[in-house]
Amino acid sequence: MNIRTDLAMEAHDIARRESKGIIDGITSSTEQHNNVKITRVEILTDEAGMKIGKEKGSYVTLEAPYLRYSLNDYEDAVKLISYELIKMSDVSKDDIVLVAGLGNRAITPDALGCRVIDKLLVTRHMQEFIDAPTGNVCAVAPGVLGTTGIETSDIIKGVTEKLSPSLIIAVDALAAADISRVSTTIQLADTGIQPGAGIGNNRKGLNRDTLGVKVIAIGVPTVIDAATISKVPIPEELAPLTVTTKDIDLVIERMSKTVANGINLALHRELTLNEIEELTA
Amino acid sequence: MNIRTDLAMEAHDIARRESKGIIDGITSSTEQHNNVKITRVEILTDEAGMKIGKEKGSYVTLEAPYLRYSLNDYEDAVKLISYELIKMSDVSKDDIVLVAGLGNRAITPDALGCRVIDKLLVTRHMQEFIDAPTGNVCAVAPGVLGTTGIETSDIIKGVTEKLSPSLIIAVDALAAADISRVSTTIQLADTGIQPGAGIGNNRKGLNRDTLGVKVIAIGVPTVIDAATISKVPIPEELAPLTVTTKDIDLVIERMSKTVANGINLALHRELTLNEIEELTA
Amino acid sequence: MNIRTDLAMEAHDIARRESKGIIDGITSSTEQHNNVKITRVEILTDEAGMKIGKEKGSYVTLEAPYLRYSLNDYEDAVKLISYELIKMSDVSKDDIVLVAGLGNRAITPDALGCRVIDKLLVTRHMQEFIDAPTGNVCAVAPGVLGTTGIETSDIIKGVTEKLSPSLIIAVDALAAADISRVSTTIQLADTGIQPGAGIGNNRKGLNRDTLGVKVIAIGVPTVIDAATISKVPIPEELAPLTVTTKDIDLVIERMSKTVANGINLALHRELTLNEIEELTA
Amino acid sequence: MNIRTDLAMEAHDIARRESKGIIDGITSSTEQHNNVKITRVEILTDEAGMKIGKEKGSYVTLEAPYLRYSLNDYEDAVKLISYELIKMSDVSKDDIVLVAGLGNRAITPDALGCRVIDKLLVTRHMQEFIDAPTGNVCAVAPGVLGTTGIETSDIIKGVTEKLSPSLIIAVDALAAADISRVSTTIQLADTGIQPGAGIGNNRKGLNRDTLGVKVIAIGVPTVIDAATISKVPIPEELAPLTVTTKDIDLVIERMSKTVANGINLALHRELTLNEIEELTA
Repeated sequence: MNIRTDLAMEAHDIARRESKGIIDGITSSTEQHNNVKITRVEILTDEAGMKIGKEKGSYVTLEAPYLRYSLNDYEDAVKLISYELIKMSDVSKDDIVLVAGLGNRAITPDALGCRVIDKLLVTRHMQEFIDAPTGNVCAVAPGVLGTTGIETSDIIKGVTEKLSPSLIIAVDALAAADISRVSTTIQLADTGIQPGAGIGNNRKGLNRDTLGVKVIAIGVPTVIDAATISKVPIPEELAPLTVTTKDIDLVIERMSKTVANGINLALHRELTLNEIEELTA
Repeated sequence: MNIRTDLAMEAHDIARRESKGIIDGITSSTEQHNNVKITRVEILTDEAGMKIGKEKGSYVTLEAPYLRYSLNDYEDAVKLISYELIKMSDVSKDDIVLVAGLGNRAITPDALGCRVIDKLLVTRHMQEFIDAPTGNVCAVAPGVLGTTGIETSDIIKGVTEKLSPSLIIAVDALAAADISRVSTTIQLADTGIQPGAGIGNNRKGLNRDTLGVKVIAIGVPTVIDAATISKVPIPEELAPLTVTTKDIDLVIERMSKTVANGINLALHRELTLNEIEELTA
Repeated sequence: MNIRTDLAMEAHDIARRESKGIIDGITSSTEQHNNVKITRVEILTDEAGMKIGKEKGSYVTLEAPYLRYSLNDYEDAVKLISYELIKMSDVSKDDIVLVAGLGNRAITPDALGCRVIDKLLVTRHMQEFIDAPTGNVCAVAPGVLGTTGIETSDIIKGVTEKLSPSLIIAVDALAAADISRVSTTIQLADTGIQPGAGIGNNRKGLNRDTLGVKVIAIGVPTVIDAATISKVPIPEELAPLTVTTKDIDLVIERMSKTVANGINLALHRELTLNEIEELTA
Repeated sequence: MNIRTDLAMEAHDIARRESKGIIDGITSSTEQHNNVKITRVEILTDEAGMKIGKEKGSYVTLEAPYLRYSLNDYEDAVKLISYELIKMSDVSKDDIVLVAGLGNRAITPDALGCRVIDKLLVTRHMQEFIDAPTGNVCAVAPGVLGTTGIETSDIIKGVTEKLSPSLIIAVDALAAADISRVSTTIQLADTGIQPGAGIGNNRKGLNRDTLGVKVIAIGVPTVIDAATISKVPIPEELAPLTVTTKDIDLVIERMSKTVANGINLALHRELTLNEIEELTA
């Protein structure tokens, strides 16, 4: 499989197409909520995971092609992210949740994680002062190896050891195989993030093995490998070329707001979306 | 010809490939200066221009694939832009030159023109005070129709009537057909800008016909149509999809500095690149 | 009067304090709407205007100290700006209105005008396509003399001659004398903008005399002269020093949204604030 | 002492003025290097430190009023920072140095630390690949308590435990008492950062006590308390008001480059400033 994708649903589709059949140990189903299509891929065994290059676990993908243009679709997406996140996680209101915004703030298509962090309702430092029905949320944007000289996983592990969160939510920009999924899709996975995944290609994974605590990954594909789409063979020196859509500035703004408020709504369950938007304005 | 390109050299190549021969009325030649390849396309007749969808005139393209990584290549490109610009223009030190930075500052791949303006050494307002051997340069960033409600050409025409410049240099981001030219190439043309060209697809042209004064266009391809590169047919609703490279933030920063200093060096001929960089730091 | 202020209400207060009495030819009154205080200063004669260094005309100042922290105060301010703007202007739905966003986008406290333009609902270019009850609005951000080499008034006059608007609204950042007014206050004036006013100290005015059409000025004080507030004499080389508040990034974001939506609500009268916010999101 | 300053030289001056004499246990001396004035304050005892509200240790302040306008002064400042930093530190080429860029990236006058990090030549992750005479440098921008919910010191302590650096350099924006020092001054201190210091008023300190390793603090005053400069008593609700200069965007850009290259030159001793600027362009 030479086509690069961080989406389990795409990897599954490609594998089924290549093998002209079903893949043992993987189930897949879809639902439609208004304009948002939900695809659930369950990888039941490690062996099945190896066939499509993904870890054993649950992957939920929301496709919302009109998110940018419709306030209704935005609200649907926020609520669906929140709902799926609550199902995947298993934390009570007082448990500390650490949200890690991965990626490089200076590269717009890689800035999704950092921009989600900017829009979170962070409350851990105010627990003694606030009497609101909020969760216990903190956040970190560790930067990328190329600009910090430090493995992302080392920074998050260091912080995790200081704070002992009950759950980590890792947000990152992803690569897709199909250009129609770039900037329109959100994937949640209870597997954390595997080594080499994401735009920044984190060298080490972020998951229960490396961090000692459950990690839910939320990702949005914002790029596609040029080699994946090009109709002509790409010269070797261009092989690492990665492309994104022209309107990426607007996409990152809208998508980071969508993901941030999905997380906010899940972790501060007793607040409404309106209240959250006022508090984070 | 369904492939969209704003580069005359690409349009010429495609036409020659399709017709399996030479195109009457168009000449083309190349030179190499260190790491920079120069291609000169001369369209000698209107009829020849129609065959490749470009206006009659001279087009000079600089390809500098390592511009981003090499200070030497950056300096070579600056000097070549300056040299070609001086050849195309015909202004004396005291003539007013208006530089128009086209495009939408909020869309990174379309922000090239605006960012060039930010880095220009503008001197028209200081003519009475300065005793330096500088030219007489002013600049305007008119914005795009979608955010101003005004045709770019109307704003520039209004300003031109007030200032009576001897030359207009219009800087814009372009679309290329070949992904290897995106973000590595600079085109100068003595034809001005034609209607529908550039990322923003200006509805009206910017040229001697519309503005009453010579217009030199400087463009850098920063995007490519998804339909141009996709190996599978693109669904109709994605047809207008335009892609750019992941590192577009860095590209725009470096390219806008290269083009701005090429213009600065041409218009303030008696200053060195070092002096210009100090004055615009 | 050595204290610099662009607010008529402050200039009036200072003059009254210095003369220990009323100033002939100037009336002043105040009202309170929830948390917003409205002060109306009417300068009835040119002679009275000279005493306080402002043009004859009507000045309305809204003081909203909690705008940054309260969504209610934000909505009140938007509606009051809209209401006062409608009273001052006299345009019908189909008249072209040109909004000019003054100032330097690269200097945050001077970027108010440019950032208002970014948030406007611009419709002039879509008049034939839209069937919505919107006005006929266009916008321009001319930049500042120091970076364009062109007088702001020349650019706006050039555009005005091309478009023949019925009204110009000029938005600019201002200097205040009292630090408590910085970033909390909005002034509307039916006089346009006088030479030397605003942070950028436009050399020429923008008013009916220079542009040939009515100009309403909307300004927000974002800076204060260091000399105005310093308890010790300021050394001569620091005399031009201008200060702003530490949180100026957030202030400009919130204030530009407030002013933009006040203008949007006035010019697209049949839309609600909710509809406008959805259309400009 | 009601006047707030993070500069030891200002605190010392104020204490001497108030006590009309010398302060036992504190020495102070000045030198001039071209346009840069160097002031060295040595606090010899804890008791002396308490008198001026600073920790025992060495403080070196560089005042470079023309840094913004002169490339010569910029180079002088870079070299002096480098020289003083080498004197204060005691690390060999292979020792890991962690640079912590403190402050809030979204508040321009508080973004100095983050912007310094962006311009560092980070090398720790490439030690096995590079054969250049570079140091072993890594960096982290931990954010501020208000947006992460995590004490800055907890993040840095977590990272320190993972990496075991031999030295930490903490860069932060500061408050000054005298407006002429805002944006023109750089302080180095071998004491680290004390609780409550800096614009963000870190609740806990960053020093050998809290982190277990030597911490050198580099700070640039970018704000001043309104109460410090106002000639009239400030109303209570404005007491926390902090002001900065209008040109803070440009100041932060130039100062972060100066501090970053001072650090780069100190830690990559065998590279020249030219080589560093090319590598970090």
